[in-house]
Amino acid sequence: MLINCVAYQDGQKLADISVADISDWLAKPGCFIWVALRDASLDELLQMQEEFDLHPLAVEDAAHGHQRPKIEEYGDVVFVVMQLLEMHQGDVHVGEVAIFVGQNFVLSVRNGSQQSFLGVRERCERERELLKQGAGFVSYALMDAVVDRYFPLIEALEADLEAVESQIFVRGSARWNIERLYALKHRSAILRHAVVPLLEVVGKLHGGRVPAVCMTCQEYFRDVHDHLARINGAIDATRDTIGTAIQVNLSLVTIEESEVTKRLAAWAAIFAVSTALAGIWGMNFEVMPELKWAYGYPIALCIIVSMACFLYWRFRRRGWL
Amino acid sequence: MLINCVAYQDGQKLADISVADISDWLAKPGCFIWVALRDASLDELLQMQEEFDLHPLAVEDAAHGHQRPKIEEYGDVVFVVMQLLEMHQGDVHVGEVAIFVGQNFVLSVRNGSQQSFLGVRERCERERELLKQGAGFVSYALMDAVVDRYFPLIEALEADLEAVESQIFVRGSARWNIERLYALKHRSAILRHAVVPLLEVVGKLHGGRVPAVCMTCQEYFRDVHDHLARINGAIDATRDTIGTAIQVNLSLVTIEESEVTKRLAAWAAIFAVSTALAGIWGMNFEVMPELKWAYGYPIALCIIVSMACFLYWRFRRRGWL
Amino acid sequence: MLINCVAYQDGQKLADISVADISDWLAKPGCFIWVALRDASLDELLQMQEEFDLHPLAVEDAAHGHQRPKIEEYGDVVFVVMQLLEMHQGDVHVGEVAIFVGQNFVLSVRNGSQQSFLGVRERCERERELLKQGAGFVSYALMDAVVDRYFPLIEALEADLEAVESQIFVRGSARWNIERLYALKHRSAILRHAVVPLLEVVGKLHGGRVPAVCMTCQEYFRDVHDHLARINGAIDATRDTIGTAIQVNLSLVTIEESEVTKRLAAWAAIFAVSTALAGIWGMNFEVMPELKWAYGYPIALCIIVSMACFLYWRFRRRGWL
Amino acid sequence: MLINCVAYQDGQKLADISVADISDWLAKPGCFIWVALRDASLDELLQMQEEFDLHPLAVEDAAHGHQRPKIEEYGDVVFVVMQLLEMHQGDVHVGEVAIFVGQNFVLSVRNGSQQSFLGVRERCERERELLKQGAGFVSYALMDAVVDRYFPLIEALEADLEAVESQIFVRGSARWNIERLYALKHRSAILRHAVVPLLEVVGKLHGGRVPAVCMTCQEYFRDVHDHLARINGAIDATRDTIGTAIQVNLSLVTIEESEVTKRLAAWAAIFAVSTALAGIWGMNFEVMPELKWAYGYPIALCIIVSMACFLYWRFRRRGWL
Amino acid sequence: MLINCVAYQDGQKLADISVADISDWLAKPGCFIWVALRDASLDELLQMQEEFDLHPLAVEDAAHGHQRPKIEEYGDVVFVVMQLLEMHQGDVHVGEVAIFVGQNFVLSVRNGSQQSFLGVRERCERERELLKQGAGFVSYALMDAVVDRYFPLIEALEADLEAVESQIFVRGSARWNIERLYALKHRSAILRHAVVPLLEVVGKLHGGRVPAVCMTCQEYFRDVHDHLARINGAIDATRDTIGTAIQVNLSLVTIEESEVTKRLAAWAAIFAVSTALAGIWGMNFEVMPELKWAYGYPIALCIIVSMACFLYWRFRRRGWL
Repeated sequence: MLINCVAYQDGQKLADISVADISDWLAKPGCFIWVALRDASLDELLQMQEEFDLHPLAVEDAAHGHQRPKIEEYGDVVFVVMQLLEMHQGDVHVGEVAIFVGQNFVLSVRNGSQQSFLGVRERCERERELLKQGAGFVSYALMDAVVDRYFPLIEALEADLEAVESQIFVRGSARWNIERLYALKHRSAILRHAVVPLLEVVGKLHGGRVPAVCMTCQEYFRDVHDHLARINGAIDATRDTIGTAIQVNLSLVTIEESEVTKRLAAWAAIFAVSTALAGIWGMNFEVMPELKWAYGYPIALCIIVSMACFLYWRFRRRGWL
Repeated sequence: MLINCVAYQDGQKLADISVADISDWLAKPGCFIWVALRDASLDELLQMQEEFDLHPLAVEDAAHGHQRPKIEEYGDVVFVVMQLLEMHQGDVHVGEVAIFVGQNFVLSVRNGSQQSFLGVRERCERERELLKQGAGFVSYALMDAVVDRYFPLIEALEADLEAVESQIFVRGSARWNIERLYALKHRSAILRHAVVPLLEVVGKLHGGRVPAVCMTCQEYFRDVHDHLARINGAIDATRDTIGTAIQVNLSLVTIEESEVTKRLAAWAAIFAVSTALAGIWGMNFEVMPELKWAYGYPIALCIIVSMACFLYWRFRRRGWL
Repeated sequence: MLINCVAYQDGQKLADISVADISDWLAKPGCFIWVALRDASLDELLQMQEEFDLHPLAVEDAAHGHQRPKIEEYGDVVFVVMQLLEMHQGDVHVGEVAIFVGQNFVLSVRNGSQQSFLGVRERCERERELLKQGAGFVSYALMDAVVDRYFPLIEALEADLEAVESQIFVRGSARWNIERLYALKHRSAILRHAVVPLLEVVGKLHGGRVPAVCMTCQEYFRDVHDHLARINGAIDATRDTIGTAIQVNLSLVTIEESEVTKRLAAWAAIFAVSTALAGIWGMNFEVMPELKWAYGYPIALCIIVSMACFLYWRFRRRGWL
Repeated sequence: MLINCVAYQDGQKLADISVADISDWLAKPGCFIWVALRDASLDELLQMQEEFDLHPLAVEDAAHGHQRPKIEEYGDVVFVVMQLLEMHQGDVHVGEVAIFVGQNFVLSVRNGSQQSFLGVRERCERERELLKQGAGFVSYALMDAVVDRYFPLIEALEADLEAVESQIFVRGSARWNIERLYALKHRSAILRHAVVPLLEVVGKLHGGRVPAVCMTCQEYFRDVHDHLARINGAIDATRDTIGTAIQVNLSLVTIEESEVTKRLAAWAAIFAVSTALAGIWGMNFEVMPELKWAYGYPIALCIIVSMACFLYWRFRRRGWL
Repeated sequence: MLINCVAYQDGQKLADISVADISDWLAKPGCFIWVALRDASLDELLQMQEEFDLHPLAVEDAAHGHQRPKIEEYGDVVFVVMQLLEMHQGDVHVGEVAIFVGQNFVLSVRNGSQQSFLGVRERCERERELLKQGAGFVSYALMDAVVDRYFPLIEALEADLEAVESQIFVRGSARWNIERLYALKHRSAILRHAVVPLLEVVGKLHGGRVPAVCMTCQEYFRDVHDHLARINGAIDATRDTIGTAIQVNLSLVTIEESEVTKRLAAWAAIFAVSTALAGIWGMNFEVMPELKWAYGYPIALCIIVSMACFLYWRFRRRGWL
C-alpha cells in the first residue's frame, strides 16, 4: 500500500507524484524522491524495483520479510532492514522496515507494524535545512526514529525486572518469580535479536570506509550507533541480572525447603518422643508398678511434657524452630 | 554413481557427455561442464580427478566424507564441503555434498543423502541468463539450495522448543520436559555443527579477497552468508532458551518438591498430634480420673479434632496446605 | 549553573570572564578558557554551544544525560562523557560529567553529582608548568580525577565481598549470604557499566591515531587507561568470585539440608522402633505369656532401650548423628 | 636413543650415517638428512645441537619436555612440539615429540611414548616423489601422522559419551553417570590441551607469512589444520554435551527425589491415619459405647480400611503413587 | 633499600658505584649499569628518577605498588611491572617488582617479597657472553626468573586439586570438598591475575614492533611468552576443572540425599505398618474374637513380621535399601 510518494528539491516539497513517474523525476538534477510503502504487495515492490533500478536480491528480502537486521550495499544503493518492536499487552510484537537509500531517493517499506514514520517526514519537511542534506540524512532520520522506539521497550523491561527483584527475597513467591523471569528472558532475547546485528552494521556507517550516500552524515550515524550501544549495554545488563536472579531464586527455594525440613524434623521428633512414652505406659504388662501409683498419671504427663519442652528448647537454640 | 554430466555453452545445454570426454570439452573455449555424482566410488572420483585435474587432498576429502563444512582454494579450483541435513522421524540425518568449482566447470559429489539438486539444474537451464554467468553462479545456486533446506529444520526445532515451553510451567511434566530439552539441545548441536564453520568461510566469498571464480557473484554469496547468519542467530537463540529452560525446569522441580515437603510436614504434624493424644489416653494408669467421666470420650475426641483443626487452620494461613 | 569561567595564558590565570565574552577571548592567540558548569539548564548549554561552536548532537547528549561513557570527536573538539559514582549508605549513586575539549578550551558539565572538580583546578593553577600544556592536560586531569574516585568504590566492593566470604562456610547464614551476594552483584554491574565502555575508548587516546588535542599527553592518557584496566580487572575478579560464591552457597545449603535429613531419618527410626515395640506389647490378646512374667516390664524396657542404643550406635558410626 | 640417522638425495636413501658425520653431509648440496631420536639423553641432544647448529632455547625445550604444543621459528629452523596421545585402559597417556625442521634436515625427538614413526619413514622412502619435496613434506608427514592418531581418541570419547547418554534417563544410574561424565570431561580436557594450541599455530603454516621451509607444502599444512579444526569441533561439541548432561543429570536426580518424597508423603499419610484411628479406639475411657457394639470391631476395621483406600485413590489421582 | 649498584663493561664487572655517580657512569660509552632496590623509599626512587632521567608516571607507579602486571614504553625506557608470588602456609603472598630497562641500564625495584634476584646477577656475571648482550638480556633474565617462580605455585595448585578430585566421589566428604574447591578457585584467581595481563604484553616484545632495547633478544622474550602461555593454559584447565568439580559435588550431594530419603522412606514404611497393625489389635473393642484365640498373639506377631519382611524384600529389589 502506497503511503507517500513525494518529490523534493532544495529541501522544498515539489509535488506528490505518481509511482509510474518516479524514474522521470529521478532523472531531473537536484531532485530527491522519498517514497513510503506499507505491507507492500509483490507487484508494488516489482514496480519499485523497475522505477528505482533496485537489485533483485534486496527486493526479494523486502518482499519476504523476517530478515535479520542488516545493512547491505548493492552498488550505489544502501539497503537497510530493521525490526520494529511494539508492546501489546506485555507481549513484544515484531514488525520490519526495509529502507532503500540511493543517491537521490529513499524508499521505505514497512511490514506488519502500526508504527508510522509520518512524524519523521513532517519534521524533515518543516526543517528545510535538514532535508537539503538529502538521502543520507533522511535515512538517518528514519533509523533514528526506529531506534528511539526501542528505548521504551528496554525501559519497560528494566522496570518489570525491578518489580521481580523487589519480590525475589519474599518467601513463597518463588514460582511467580521464576515464571516472570522466564518471560523477561524471552522478551530480552527478542530485543537483543533486533539490536545486536544492527549494532554491528551501523558501526560501518561512520569512521572507516563508508557508503558514499552516508558520507556527509557520519556524525549522525555515530549517534545512532551510540544509542544502539546504550540499548545493547542495557540488554546485556538485564540478561545478566535475569541469569543471576534465576540462580538466586533456586538458592532461596532450597534454603526455604531446608528450613521447612528442619522444622518438620523438630516437631516430628517432639511428637515421636511423646508417642513412644505414651506407648510404653500403654503396654499391658501385669507388673508395672508405676501404673498403680496415685500420682503415676500426672508424673507421666509431666515427664512427657517436660521432655517435649526440653526438645523444643534445644531445637530453638539450634535455630530449627 | 553418475547422475548428470552435461556441457553448456552460452547458458544453453549442448549435450550429455561421457565422463571420459570431459577433459576434451573443458578445452573448448566458452564451454562449461556441470557434473553431478552421488555416493561416488573411489574409482569414479579418481577418474574425475584426472579429467578435471583436481588436487589429490580435495579428492581424498570428498571420498572419505565426514568433513566439517569448509571452503578451500586449490589453485584456481574452489573446493566446498557442506552438510545436508534431513529430518527422519524426529532424528536429524547428516549427509554431505562436496563441490569443486573451476573456471569452467562445477562438480558436485553428494554422499549419504536423499536430497537431489535436480531442481537447481532445471531452474538454471530454464533461466538461460543465470546459467550464462557460469561456474560462480552455479556454485551459488547449489549452496543456496543446501542452505535453504536448513530453514525447515530450524523452524521445526523452534516449534518443538515452543511446545516444550508451553508445558514448562505445568506441574508434573518436569521429566518429560527435561528429556525433550536434552533431545532438542542435541538437535541444535547438529545444526550448529553444519552452520557455524560454513558461516565463517562463506564470509570470505564476498567483500575482501575473493576467489576469481566467485568474483562476479559476490552479492549472491553475501545473500547466502546472510541466510546462514540468520540461521545461526536462530540456533544461538534456541540454545540460549534451552539452557534457561533446563535451569528453570530444575527450579520448578525444586519448588514443587518444596511445596510437597511443606504439605507433608503439615499433615504429618496433624496426625502426629492426634496419635500422641490418643496414646496418652491409652495409657494404663489406674488413676486417670478423666477416663471415668461420663463425657470423657466425647471431650477427648473434641480436643483431638479441635487440635487438628487448629493446626489445619494455621498451616493453611501459612500457605503450607 | 555556572561554577567557573576563567581565561588563562601561559599557565597563568588572566581573569574570571563572563560567558558572553568567551568567543572574544577564544580568538586571542595563546589564550586558554576553562569553563565548569553544574546541572546546566538547556539555555546555558545552548549559549555554550554558540560561544564555543559545539556540535548540536554533542550538546544534546550533554543536556539529556544518561549516556553511556564515551569519547567522540566532532571535528577538532573531543567530547567525553563519564559517569560519576558515589556511595550513599551502601547504594551507588550515578551522576555524569560531559567534557568538551577544544584546541584552546575545556568545558565540563557535571550532572546529578556532588563531586566537585575544584581540587583539579586548584592543583592545575598551582602547578603552572602543567597548565601550560593546555586543553589536553586539563582534560587528562579531569578524567584522572573521575577515575581515581572509582577506586574507593571497588575497594568497598572487595571489602564487602570478603565480609560475605568469611561468612560463607558458617552454618545457617545462607539466606543472609545470598541476599548480600545479590546486592554485590548489582553494585559490581553498576561499576562495570561505568568502566568498560570508557576502557574501550580511552585506549584510543594513546598509541594509534590520537585526536590532535590529546597528542602531547599520550603517556598521561595511557596512565588513565591503565587505571581503568586495573579497576576492570578487579571488577571481573569480583564478579567471578560472586558467581562462584552463589554456586558454593547453594551447594552448602544442599549439604546442610542433607545432613539434617540424615539426622531426621536416624531419630525417626529410633523412635519408630520404640513405638512399634511398645505397640506390640500394648495389644490386647488374652494369651500373651510375657505380660504375666514378674520381670516382663523391665525386660521389655531393656529391649526397647537397647534397641534404641544399638540404632544410635550404628547411625553414629555412619556419621548420621 | 638414536633410532635412525639417514641421508637422502633426490628422494633416494644414500646411507645410514653416524651422528658425528651429520654436519659433513649437511654441507653437501642436494643432500637431505632425517634423524629420529627417542627419549634422548641431554648428551645426545647437545651433540645434535652442535651438528645441526640448533638454537639452545629450542634444545632446552626438547630436553625438558612437558611443553605445550607449539611451532616456533629460530632463524631458518622451524621447531615443532606436539603431544602424542595414547589410550591405556581408559586412561590417556601423554607423550611428546619435538621436531626440528631445517632447510635440508629433519630431526624428530620422541619422549615418553610408544608411538613410532617408522611407518612414516617407510611410506616416504617408498614414494620417492614425495620425499623429493624435502624437509617441508617430511615435517608435514610427521605432523599428519601425529594428528591422525588423535582421531581414535576422540572417537572413543564420543562413543563413551554416547554410552553415558543412553543411560542418562535410566532411573537409579545417576551416580554412575556423574562419575563417568566427570572422567570424560577430564579426558576431553587432555585432548583439548593437545589440540587447541596446535590449531592456533598450524594456521600460520599456510595462507599468510609462512616459514620458507614450509612454503611449498602449504596445501598439506592446511589439510593438517583442517583435521585439527575437525577434532577441535568434535571436542567442543563433546564438552558442551558433557556440561548439559551433568546439568540434566542433576535435574533428573532432583525429579526422582521429588517423586520419592511424594510417594513417601502418601504412604506415610495412609498409615498415619490408620494409626491415629486405632489409637483413638485404643483409649481407655470407660464410656466408649462403640466398643461394646457387637459389630464395633468390624465397623472400625472397615472405617480404617476405607479411609486408607480413599487416600490411596486420591494420591493415585494426583500422580503421587 | 639499595641492594646493588654495579657498573659493567664488555660483560665484566667494573665497580660497585655510589648512587650519586650513576649519571656520570651512564655517560661513558659501552658502560652498563645494573641497580637493584628493595622496598625503596620515595626518596630513593626520586634520586633514581633524576640519575636515570625516568618518567614521573613510571616512578609514581613503582612507588605506589599494587599495579597490574604491565610493560610500558616511556621514550627509550621500557617499564615492566610483574607480580612476585610466594606460598606461605597455603596462602599466596603477592609482592611486586618494577623494572626500568634503558639503553644501557637496568633498574629493578622489588616490593613486599622475599624473592631475591641475586642468583640472576651471579649467573649473568659468571657467563660473560650473556651479560655482554646488555640491558635487553638482563631484563629477560629477570623476567624469566620471575616467571619460573610461578611454576611451583601452579604445580601446587594442580596437586591440591588432584587431592580434592581423588576425594570427590567419597561419600560424606562434600563439605570438605566444597571448602577446598572454593579456596583453590581463589588461589587460581590470584595466579591468573598475575599471568594474564603479563601474557598480553610480553607478546609485544617479539614478532611485531618491538622496543629497540629488546630487539636483539626477541627469541628469549618469546620463550618467556611461551612459559606464560603454558602457565595460563594450566590455570585455565584448573579453573575449568574446579568449576566442573563444584557442579559435580552438588550433584553428588543431591544423589546422596536422594538415597538417604529413599532409605528413610523404606524404614519408615516398615515400622509404620508394624505400628498400625499393633495399634489395631490394641483397640479396646469388646468383641474382637482373635484376641481370645490361643495362638492369636503368635499369629499376630507372624503377620507383623512377615509384613515387615515382605516390605523389606520389595524395597531391596527396588534398590531403596
